[in-house]
Amino acid sequence: MEVTVAVPKRVDHEERRRLIAEALWRIASSRGLEGASLRDVAAEAGISLGQLQHYFSGKDEMLVFALEHITLLAEARIRERIMALWRSEGGPGSEAASDGPSPRTVLRECAAEMLPLDEETRTGLLVGIAYFVRAINDERIRRHAKEGQPKLRAFFAEQFREAVERGEAVPGLDPEMEAMLLIALTDGLTSSALMEVITPEEAMELVDRHLGRLFVR
Amino acid sequence: MEVTVAVPKRVDHEERRRLIAEALWRIASSRGLEGASLRDVAAEAGISLGQLQHYFSGKDEMLVFALEHITLLAEARIRERIMALWRSEGGPGSEAASDGPSPRTVLRECAAEMLPLDEETRTGLLVGIAYFVRAINDERIRRHAKEGQPKLRAFFAEQFREAVERGEAVPGLDPEMEAMLLIALTDGLTSSALMEVITPEEAMELVDRHLGRLFVR
Repeated sequence: MEVTVAVPKRVDHEERRRLIAEALWRIASSRGLEGASLRDVAAEAGISLGQLQHYFSGKDEMLVFALEHITLLAEARIRERIMALWRSEGGPGSEAASDGPSPRTVLRECAAEMLPLDEETRTGLLVGIAYFVRAINDERIRRHAKEGQPKLRAFFAEQFREAVERGEAVPGLDPEMEAMLLIALTDGLTSSALMEVITPEEAMELVDRHLGRLFVR
Repeated sequence: MEVTVAVPKRVDHEERRRLIAEALWRIASSRGLEGASLRDVAAEAGISLGQLQHYFSGKDEMLVFALEHITLLAEARIRERIMALWRSEGGPGSEAASDGPSPRTVLRECAAEMLPLDEETRTGLLVGIAYFVRAINDERIRRHAKEGQPKLRAFFAEQFREAVERGEAVPGLDPEMEAMLLIALTDGLTSSALMEVITPEEAMELVDRHLGRLFVR
């Protein structure tokens, strides 16, 4: 009995948190999160400040949740992109099954997912920037924020190592350094695209130029 | 007579603006500019809000001034770095006068100046980020902020073009694209260094690795 009662309650709780995160994204994409208070977010989500505080004790905790939610969505989209590519190349279940998409393709798709090529990614980036700015000035937040990047770096490094093993990388390529370079490059191109100094499509073209130098095929 | 009266007045005016900009930098490097009001800046500069408003009608105007001031300082420091290198290589006035520092050296010094390798650059970057965040959410500010980057891009592109002419660049190098790539890369490495994901020295090492791929010598 306890279980059947507990399950819908938990779902409701998660649903409410999701609604709050979405309110946060709407604010992020319209007027920015910097000046937004907990009260503003509660109003946008259509709940009281007290109800909001039941879920999040402060703005930073709320930003962390919104960021994690966005990261999960982005990961799901990257997986979907890669699977779609794999299928089109004759992936799992196909007769012409290959070894899977090449490391170069995987890295390219990840970078594409990090650029503001659509509204959803753009909003995610704006939440990320609001959090980044808070993290720079607050060591406690920075410690938490720092945990995310090593995961991405390790994944990128793994792709570069695989490319070296497959003989697809240029000689002398250092997987760890290239992982950091690609993240930094995509990050910087994203800032320029958000500032409309370049278009997201030009940013993608520059990523391709960079990757073109790192791979022999 | 008018001139002798006007000059000290103007100096005083500039001096006051500089004091305000410095107050802004102190706030930027300690607790961040995002939540700082005009009143906070006036208090930090030791003047009244009314006096501050005599110089700047709003926060954005003040940020623009602080940014321009920082840019001028950074440009002066880059010139100084390059001249120092030139002198050590036997520059102007020396018997072993060369053609000046190589484009690679100039680009490297510019990138170094953009990384938070010391407290002054770090503070400048924090002011820049506060401005960037405002620009993303406000088209009017963004229009102004966008004007700065093309100048840097043109300068970098010119260096790459010179490297091509001197035969110092790898074949097929596109000066315009490489200028944008180097700016984006340095920008992204700066974010990672501010987040303490990498050290400023590691960032510099990555810039060198990137540059190493673009030049034959």
